[in-house]
Amino acid sequence: MPEWVTAPCPAVSEVHRQAALNRQGQLTKPTGALGRLEQVAVDLAAIQHAASPVADRAPILIFAGDHGVAELGVSAYPQDVTIAMLGNFAGGGAAISVLARELGCRLEVIDVGTRAKDALPGVVTDRPRAGSRNFASEPALTNDEVIFAMSAGRRAVMRAVAGSPDVLILGEMGIGNTTSAAAIAAALLGADAASLTGAGTGLDVAGRERKSGVIESALALHGLRERPVSPLGVLAAVGGLEIAALTGALIAAGQQRLAVLVDGFIVSVAALVAIRLNASCRPYLIFTHCSAEQGHRSVLQALDATPLLDLDLRLGEGSGAALALPLVRMACTLHTRMATFAEAAVPGRKSDAP
Amino acid sequence: MPEWVTAPCPAVSEVHRQAALNRQGQLTKPTGALGRLEQVAVDLAAIQHAASPVADRAPILIFAGDHGVAELGVSAYPQDVTIAMLGNFAGGGAAISVLARELGCRLEVIDVGTRAKDALPGVVTDRPRAGSRNFASEPALTNDEVIFAMSAGRRAVMRAVAGSPDVLILGEMGIGNTTSAAAIAAALLGADAASLTGAGTGLDVAGRERKSGVIESALALHGLRERPVSPLGVLAAVGGLEIAALTGALIAAGQQRLAVLVDGFIVSVAALVAIRLNASCRPYLIFTHCSAEQGHRSVLQALDATPLLDLDLRLGEGSGAALALPLVRMACTLHTRMATFAEAAVPGRKSDAP
Repeated sequence: MPEWVTAPCPAVSEVHRQAALNRQGQLTKPTGALGRLEQVAVDLAAIQHAASPVADRAPILIFAGDHGVAELGVSAYPQDVTIAMLGNFAGGGAAISVLARELGCRLEVIDVGTRAKDALPGVVTDRPRAGSRNFASEPALTNDEVIFAMSAGRRAVMRAVAGSPDVLILGEMGIGNTTSAAAIAAALLGADAASLTGAGTGLDVAGRERKSGVIESALALHGLRERPVSPLGVLAAVGGLEIAALTGALIAAGQQRLAVLVDGFIVSVAALVAIRLNASCRPYLIFTHCSAEQGHRSVLQALDATPLLDLDLRLGEGSGAALALPLVRMACTLHTRMATFAEAAVPGRKSDAP
Repeated sequence: MPEWVTAPCPAVSEVHRQAALNRQGQLTKPTGALGRLEQVAVDLAAIQHAASPVADRAPILIFAGDHGVAELGVSAYPQDVTIAMLGNFAGGGAAISVLARELGCRLEVIDVGTRAKDALPGVVTDRPRAGSRNFASEPALTNDEVIFAMSAGRRAVMRAVAGSPDVLILGEMGIGNTTSAAAIAAALLGADAASLTGAGTGLDVAGRERKSGVIESALALHGLRERPVSPLGVLAAVGGLEIAALTGALIAAGQQRLAVLVDGFIVSVAALVAIRLNASCRPYLIFTHCSAEQGHRSVLQALDATPLLDLDLRLGEGSGAALALPLVRMACTLHTRMATFAEAAVPGRKSDAP
């Protein structure tokens, strides 16, 4: 494993956290009245070592990969959709493309392992192979392939860092990737596959049972029901290239002192892997939404994460994180621009003493 | 009661609702994958009789009033804060002022019944009296005062309509108004005062018990525990001028075919009154958040409303509705700008037949 993977992320600033908390107590509102947004502003102040946290520049990185296990019919959509959607991202018609324009975010799509024969227009190609193997019968990836993809994730973060971003949005695309993500989560959390297996893009009950059975068998096949499991070993056995890339990107972002707006089930599972590999990245993660995908709630609980939104989203592409960006931006603006009681000459709270 | 109060709001367009639903099914995402945002776009299309719903122009109206019952120490803040905060709204330092600038929304503050001796700079004055009476010992308002305030709400909506708004945000300010709102909700829902009485701006446990006791006694005093109660009678007995104004504004907005982004506990209670007076306004209401104020969840349940956000907000001022505006705007933009499967040449869902 390359040294960078476990290199510690810098500590967030407790001095700036405390200063931000103090300021929140002076703004013209009852203490705590802005709820979760106060916490977001305070956390970002600590992450950014800043009195005035900002989330203006928020590039979006989408990692795409294909999954051998898709052969088994674990998705409601054909595997070709992965590549077709990369065209749609570049063409501006996908949800995340529309949101990126609306929010003024730079969007980069990285093919870290689709089955595309050639480089796709408007897409960065940085992959060790074209798609993972079918983990129902063999390991999905070699260790070297996992590390290549993790490094591709880090390379994408370093490209984004060159533009001096305030926060980072990570997303993914890959038909079959809820199957891989559920398998990873089941292995790392020691949980039943069924509890983590959802409808993905829209399986019916029978489809979900088949998917859950595929995962449970694969975990047995690869010895992932024996403790302890290694995060890297899990990624190799049942992972996907875009999930490995996200894992590397999440760690690299923390190492660059960059807050990540974590999207849905897939990115949250990558966050679980990243934290198991390098726990020092945890303070840099802002969980943006709880999706409708079964299993996401369990993964968020395991990470002690309370996301901002709960809108029954189940799209991926980083779309949930993008939808939460205005809240993060407004949390920052309120923190910085609201008047204090003293500035506005508003009387403060009555003495609590009777 | 003036005739306009019960005049029916026009029906929303089922033709446009169906067309919007059809379009959602063709966009390049799994069906339903944008969750609650799809419903928002479809509802707005029906309200606006439009193929492309919009929420660009979203003026904010804040109604302010004082409450005689505040004499009894039912708030953690002194009553002067109502007037001081109107200065802060006009001066740009309040949360809603910051949000209005950030979102490009016109902000109008209407004094429908504060204790201010003179007209306040930057504030529209349109009030029947300076503050309500203390409802612990006498009716808060006369019927004429309630109707004046409701009409002031309608007048504010008609001023906003002159600017061709897409949606409307309604908010409020008034020290003591969670006490009045809880009393109104308890009377209309036939619920215990205790179940609807929250911390407001930050009461401790003893303060909440005192507040709940004040409400329960007042409901008995005014005969509001006997069924049936009249919504107008409840507003007169334990209401507030800003709550009456919101009630009128909510009805008038529906009559003008204008969607309202409903804010927190106070505006939701006004929505309860409005719907009891004129149920035809219900389809025009988009509930934006569930606040931390005890009682809000019960009121939302009574209205069969599932709000968009749940962020432990408890500020009022229309701030929660403003925070939800970007989600509503993005729901519209996604609906209008995303490519269809056909446009993007993305393969559709596999046949569900085996």
